[in-house]
Amino acid sequence: MRKTFLLVLTLSILIAGSILTMNTGFTNADSEKSSLNSPNNGKVKNVIVMIGDGMGPAFTTAYRYMNDDESTAKMEQTVFDQHYVGDAVTHPQDPEENVTDSAAAATSMAAGIKTYNGAISVDNNREPVKTVLEAAKENGMATGLVATSQINHATPAAFGAHNESRNNYDEIADDFYDEKIDGKHKVDVILGGGTDYFDRSDRNLIKAFKNDGYNYVTSKDDMQANDNEQLLGLFAPVGLPKAIDREESIPSLKDMTNEALEQLDKEKEGFFLMVEGSQIDWAAHDNDSVSAMSEMEDFAEAFETVIEFAEKDKHTQVVLTADHSTGGFSIGRDGEYNFNPEAIEAAERTPEFLAEEIIDGADIEDILNEYVRFEFTEEEMASVKEAAATDDFDTVYSAISDVFNKRAGAGFTTGGHTGVDVPVYAYGPKSDIFSRLIDNTDIANEIFNFIR
Amino acid sequence: MRKTFLLVLTLSILIAGSILTMNTGFTNADSEKSSLNSPNNGKVKNVIVMIGDGMGPAFTTAYRYMNDDESTAKMEQTVFDQHYVGDAVTHPQDPEENVTDSAAAATSMAAGIKTYNGAISVDNNREPVKTVLEAAKENGMATGLVATSQINHATPAAFGAHNESRNNYDEIADDFYDEKIDGKHKVDVILGGGTDYFDRSDRNLIKAFKNDGYNYVTSKDDMQANDNEQLLGLFAPVGLPKAIDREESIPSLKDMTNEALEQLDKEKEGFFLMVEGSQIDWAAHDNDSVSAMSEMEDFAEAFETVIEFAEKDKHTQVVLTADHSTGGFSIGRDGEYNFNPEAIEAAERTPEFLAEEIIDGADIEDILNEYVRFEFTEEEMASVKEAAATDDFDTVYSAISDVFNKRAGAGFTTGGHTGVDVPVYAYGPKSDIFSRLIDNTDIANEIFNFIR
Repeated sequence: MRKTFLLVLTLSILIAGSILTMNTGFTNADSEKSSLNSPNNGKVKNVIVMIGDGMGPAFTTAYRYMNDDESTAKMEQTVFDQHYVGDAVTHPQDPEENVTDSAAAATSMAAGIKTYNGAISVDNNREPVKTVLEAAKENGMATGLVATSQINHATPAAFGAHNESRNNYDEIADDFYDEKIDGKHKVDVILGGGTDYFDRSDRNLIKAFKNDGYNYVTSKDDMQANDNEQLLGLFAPVGLPKAIDREESIPSLKDMTNEALEQLDKEKEGFFLMVEGSQIDWAAHDNDSVSAMSEMEDFAEAFETVIEFAEKDKHTQVVLTADHSTGGFSIGRDGEYNFNPEAIEAAERTPEFLAEEIIDGADIEDILNEYVRFEFTEEEMASVKEAAATDDFDTVYSAISDVFNKRAGAGFTTGGHTGVDVPVYAYGPKSDIFSRLIDNTDIANEIFNFIR
Repeated sequence: MRKTFLLVLTLSILIAGSILTMNTGFTNADSEKSSLNSPNNGKVKNVIVMIGDGMGPAFTTAYRYMNDDESTAKMEQTVFDQHYVGDAVTHPQDPEENVTDSAAAATSMAAGIKTYNGAISVDNNREPVKTVLEAAKENGMATGLVATSQINHATPAAFGAHNESRNNYDEIADDFYDEKIDGKHKVDVILGGGTDYFDRSDRNLIKAFKNDGYNYVTSKDDMQANDNEQLLGLFAPVGLPKAIDREESIPSLKDMTNEALEQLDKEKEGFFLMVEGSQIDWAAHDNDSVSAMSEMEDFAEAFETVIEFAEKDKHTQVVLTADHSTGGFSIGRDGEYNFNPEAIEAAERTPEFLAEEIIDGADIEDILNEYVRFEFTEEEMASVKEAAATDDFDTVYSAISDVFNKRAGAGFTTGGHTGVDVPVYAYGPKSDIFSRLIDNTDIANEIFNFIR
């Protein structure tokens, strides 16, 4: 009887496993690439949360349009599509506002609670709430935060700090150093921007981290030469330059993610890593489709790196989502039934970079001809020149973005966020748990379960 | 050994079944209502496809905001949320346009192919392609089409007709009568608007259908008194009035759906039914958030009716999705982090109705006071009066809509469609098949498998 039971159990697991596989991810014949989101039903050792800030459903769909091979009849799947599992609800619990900001949403994903806009892992009573990164550290896991914003910006802050306001940047940076768990620093690998907040007149956190054994790096080369498990890398005073404006010395999100994985993976108890594509949101706040799409590319490359790691590791759970959508971005505008990726791809630098050059005195026609692979119409050129006459950076930035947006068919309704549900992607042993309409708090609450 | 095998198999299925249940739908503790999207793993007898025309992700999310009970901390799930399974990709295969129209998308969902914008179940060579409704009829199933548009409009047309252009309304209506399968009419229950296309100077399809045994009705009462299995109900010359403008004599989408289910369910071979919430799209084309949300409500009530039927029946597969999103609708606009349902709920008639009354000479202040449950500010009232001075219906309609949109925080970027992925909902034995990122063609192709 015992043997029969074992046989039953074994076959049951096999059949259940095969049915699960059948019903998750892209397993239909039409799929471009078959993907097993549940490659292993075993224990989760490592957890990687990736957040595309502001990356609502129109962004992930537009990114598919951007990557479409027009010589084929079908629209190819993106790396996101291959690991799609469902959508997430994002609203905050705020007495004044029902569309979330990045702080409230990050708190939900980091600590599993709803809270007010601006909160950094504190609840509506301003009381600190434990985050999944802190729980991981309590369990002896290594921990990392990687972002293209300053690393004490709302999203990474909510995983590694507690503050009643996201605007208290210095206090948040202090938390990364001061708040210890079992006598140890909370975050082992810290990579992003923000020297302004770590090297201050009142306090030098860089020196303090170095004194405690952290390696400190400020360039891509130095970062890649690092072999210290505790690492602070700050590559800009505040946020990193946008992806297509970056110099060679500044790492991409993929570079930083690779370095984080290399160090964190040394810990035999496993690790927790949060990686943020921070500036998809910033670009969308500026209604700048060029920067939004190139920041998506930067984020997608980091996701590919993470998936490659997880495929080899087999005990890593990856969850990728957005905190909210930004800009009311739409694929198509003004009655046109077209989205034209080539208009966006024509930009070799961001409209922000071009506007800065113009404000700094560059010849308008020269700079646009140098960095944009289409010819501005007379009307388009006139709109930029008119904007330049104001000598106001925002006006010039907006005029240049408008040219790209109109050619691309990219619409915007707001300089703020919108409330639409956001897509969720997962890879790893526990992916099926996220394969439904989740609340953003479910991300933290499910992770608390994995790493318990 | 045989007994052991059967025991193994039985237990395996039980365990597999319980795992499937665990991993689909809302089974987490946080869920408002637990829902089994896969109540029965047996054969599908009936198939119901529901299409919210234009109902992109911002619409289904906004509908959740609309139905939120503000006295509770959480945001309650809608009937859609309870049956959410994933998202669908909607792009057409068109030489000129990469954002779909309703005809191409409906052809994809009805016939399983990609085609050009405007195509009514013909491929890119203008050749007719078999639809799931036709396959159902070939299998001896009863069939029905229900819509709030004229019933020969793009979406229902693509299930029951073939034409190289959606604009050939008369030819499409003719197809419903002329194209027979095994000598029988293709569509048993036809409910919607469109008398203008069925009773014409060149041809009277109504008389023809009646001669062939169809009951013909033009009012809600007559429809509900019907007990004939073949039924033609046309309740308006073209599209039905919008939900909140309807007189008592005109059935709601729920009323029509109920009647269709009652007749179709008499067929022991099962049935195929397509139900469209047609005018969510029309409202969004007009950038009219009031009508979009009340049409959503009309559609949601029909969905509830369908779910109740399927819960009792246990062999009905329901799939609900949108063909595309419309209007670039956003939850939040102009930098504000708020969506205010109460501004939309304040309208007792559509802005379209109010504009018509004003154009017909009604006193502006009187009509707005009578039908809107908030007081227009001086500025708002002035904007409507200024519009009325043009004596142009569209200008007045737009001015009134703008007041609601601004108060609600509803943004729009276009009078056309947008390319964003759309949500998919399912209930029934085969729901798990749709629980991934599907292409809109997968809807037809999976249904062809069920009903084979």
